[in-house]
Amino acid sequence: MKLGAFLWATGHHIAAWRHPKAHVTAGIDIDHYIELARIAEAAKFDMVFCEDAAGLREANVAIASQTSRSIGFEPISLLSALAVQTSRIGLVSTASTSYNEPYGLARTFLSLDHLSGGRAGWNLVTSASPIEAANFGSTGLRPHAERYERAREFAEVVTGLWRGKLDGASGHDGQSFSVRDPLDLPRSAQGAPVMVQAGASDVGRDLAARTADVVFTAAQTFEEAKAFYDDLKGRLAAYEREPDDIKIMPGVAPVVAETEAQAQEKYEALQELIPDDVGVALLSSYLSISDLWRYPIDGPLPVLPESEGMKSRQALVVEQSHRDGLSIRQLARHFAGARGHWRIVGTAAQIADELQARFEGGAADGFNVMPAYFLGELDAFAALVVPELQRRGLFRKDYEGHTLRDHLGLKRPGVAATQT
Amino acid sequence: MKLGAFLWATGHHIAAWRHPKAHVTAGIDIDHYIELARIAEAAKFDMVFCEDAAGLREANVAIASQTSRSIGFEPISLLSALAVQTSRIGLVSTASTSYNEPYGLARTFLSLDHLSGGRAGWNLVTSASPIEAANFGSTGLRPHAERYERAREFAEVVTGLWRGKLDGASGHDGQSFSVRDPLDLPRSAQGAPVMVQAGASDVGRDLAARTADVVFTAAQTFEEAKAFYDDLKGRLAAYEREPDDIKIMPGVAPVVAETEAQAQEKYEALQELIPDDVGVALLSSYLSISDLWRYPIDGPLPVLPESEGMKSRQALVVEQSHRDGLSIRQLARHFAGARGHWRIVGTAAQIADELQARFEGGAADGFNVMPAYFLGELDAFAALVVPELQRRGLFRKDYEGHTLRDHLGLKRPGVAATQT
Repeated sequence: MKLGAFLWATGHHIAAWRHPKAHVTAGIDIDHYIELARIAEAAKFDMVFCEDAAGLREANVAIASQTSRSIGFEPISLLSALAVQTSRIGLVSTASTSYNEPYGLARTFLSLDHLSGGRAGWNLVTSASPIEAANFGSTGLRPHAERYERAREFAEVVTGLWRGKLDGASGHDGQSFSVRDPLDLPRSAQGAPVMVQAGASDVGRDLAARTADVVFTAAQTFEEAKAFYDDLKGRLAAYEREPDDIKIMPGVAPVVAETEAQAQEKYEALQELIPDDVGVALLSSYLSISDLWRYPIDGPLPVLPESEGMKSRQALVVEQSHRDGLSIRQLARHFAGARGHWRIVGTAAQIADELQARFEGGAADGFNVMPAYFLGELDAFAALVVPELQRRGLFRKDYEGHTLRDHLGLKRPGVAATQT
Repeated sequence: MKLGAFLWATGHHIAAWRHPKAHVTAGIDIDHYIELARIAEAAKFDMVFCEDAAGLREANVAIASQTSRSIGFEPISLLSALAVQTSRIGLVSTASTSYNEPYGLARTFLSLDHLSGGRAGWNLVTSASPIEAANFGSTGLRPHAERYERAREFAEVVTGLWRGKLDGASGHDGQSFSVRDPLDLPRSAQGAPVMVQAGASDVGRDLAARTADVVFTAAQTFEEAKAFYDDLKGRLAAYEREPDDIKIMPGVAPVVAETEAQAQEKYEALQELIPDDVGVALLSSYLSISDLWRYPIDGPLPVLPESEGMKSRQALVVEQSHRDGLSIRQLARHFAGARGHWRIVGTAAQIADELQARFEGGAADGFNVMPAYFLGELDAFAALVVPELQRRGLFRKDYEGHTLRDHLGLKRPGVAATQT
């Protein structure tokens, strides 16, 4: 079983910053992040993971200031600092194909890979936020299909540069990019940084099947997780890849304590800290609509227009709304708490049972762990759940290799394949 | 007197990689850079400085592989790693206004500033290399004036974002960029990263006078250095700035030893390691011409066409060629050795005399030190020259403040001035 520690400033719970044990300015406290990375490394996690967006995460500044992630380090600088304060754990950062150029991005991640002795990974995103678009001269978001077409070509150039060979005789000449090689860096200890993706739309899944080594995903139920897992693994053959070439790691938002009652109490205390306006604003952004606040908060979701935003997350919310007949307030609290990810509240044994069932049931190769607040809840997961997984023989007791590819059991890539 | 330690892989001497004491793979050895930064910090340098280019530094790959800087870390990732391995020294990196976007660059440098507790600086360059252009989809270099106009607007946006206020009511809307604010980071401990520039053309000097805190420059003689110093300081009043608001720090390439004879011997041993083809290729790139090798190597420079490359460096070579009547081979060796910078060979007292004369003569506020090879020659400068400067009361014996602005004696910036 593979485990990622998803770092996120004060914590993943939307109201983490209001928790009495929260570190409110965690986002710009490097010592805090160093401690988190060391806890995760001592627990033998495969990697730490950072999200990213070049801009505020929430358009309404009043709301943004009331969430756990209003400010924080840019992740390449953060992970480069963590690289020299850790020795084995993988270091994965998100970066956008819409607001970067492939040569610059390839070079930066390969530099991090050298800095860390082969522990870097890039989580490719196409950036669905109009806030970011406005910071980069765009008046609106590019259509979903167009973003993904650019991302496909972008990924092809980046992996070509990492592997020392672009597709054309004198470099790459394509629709969106024209790039000469080589980079001013040699191959890294793991051959090339690990490629991570999290897109769940049809075109997102195809891109992952074509290029990803790791896929993060959000799935509430076993059935959703299993369906996604089977679908994605089934797409690999078309690109001449084996099922084991991709590790699928759904997000999980655990709340663990010594007893079930303590865990429930901890969870409810967090949920009560969520202000309604913050919950509704976050739900609005998942749905890519701006006027959700106009509808009665105890009524059902309105019918939604087609959107160019993040389609897969929108579908997840709508599906849950229909399945459980939840009101806007209930949906808002539910999604705000774990940001759409799978929540498990219980003892270490209960949480291990759930993870084991999805892992052994063929619905996950591992999990991206999203602690409610830092560092308390990462510490609790490392102290309680990890030893339980180790006792069951599901998780390593020590690192066997030195690179992120070693930890994940991924092949070391050769030279770039010719264009598919 | 201010001192920068200019880090450059194996060393500044073009043939450093052939030196018996050189560390040939220094460019991708993070422990090596950590040691360099610690030597510079122990010697109380104001800052370490990294150049940058998004591509090979030399178009001819055969030649590139025969110089001291063919491979190396991307500098933001490098300096972020150094930030958590040092505590006081400033961390300055070059980055291009041609191949970045202002929002992304502002965010990355401010993140480094937070990571380091207020020790970051950005050296603005417009990128004159056609190699970089080809990596970013351009078929040729943009004209000098156009690059600088983009740089001027770029710098305005970046400093506005750092200071928490862009020029327009809803952000910046200009010729090249449209950017909303704010950044997702608060002000840093030093108010904003330090702005460094090195352009020496007329338009480059104007940009520096408008926005720079520190200016690096290349000057062979006292007269050249003094003329540049007076000219640049004289331009400040037009932007309502005081002479002390900019620190001018010419590059200096010292070769120091216990005796003058030992220093000469060390220097000559290095010069003899320069292959003619490498020297001529480097001289060609300074002159932005490609066919210098066609001319007799022991004859004079040919008459040169106007170029869109780096005008100021071209002028420096031509001037020296006329002044000293040097052949192509002689010029190549001369410039290749110190890359166009001021070379001093001698004892600590002799080097201190020269630095003191330029400092007290009003030709420099400090120097950017370019050791011939690392770490030996940085170590020698720290062990021999720095104590001599301290004995003379020219250089600090310990840091007084904690931020780079503290070290440099620069004002902490307030909110952004309105557009000038």
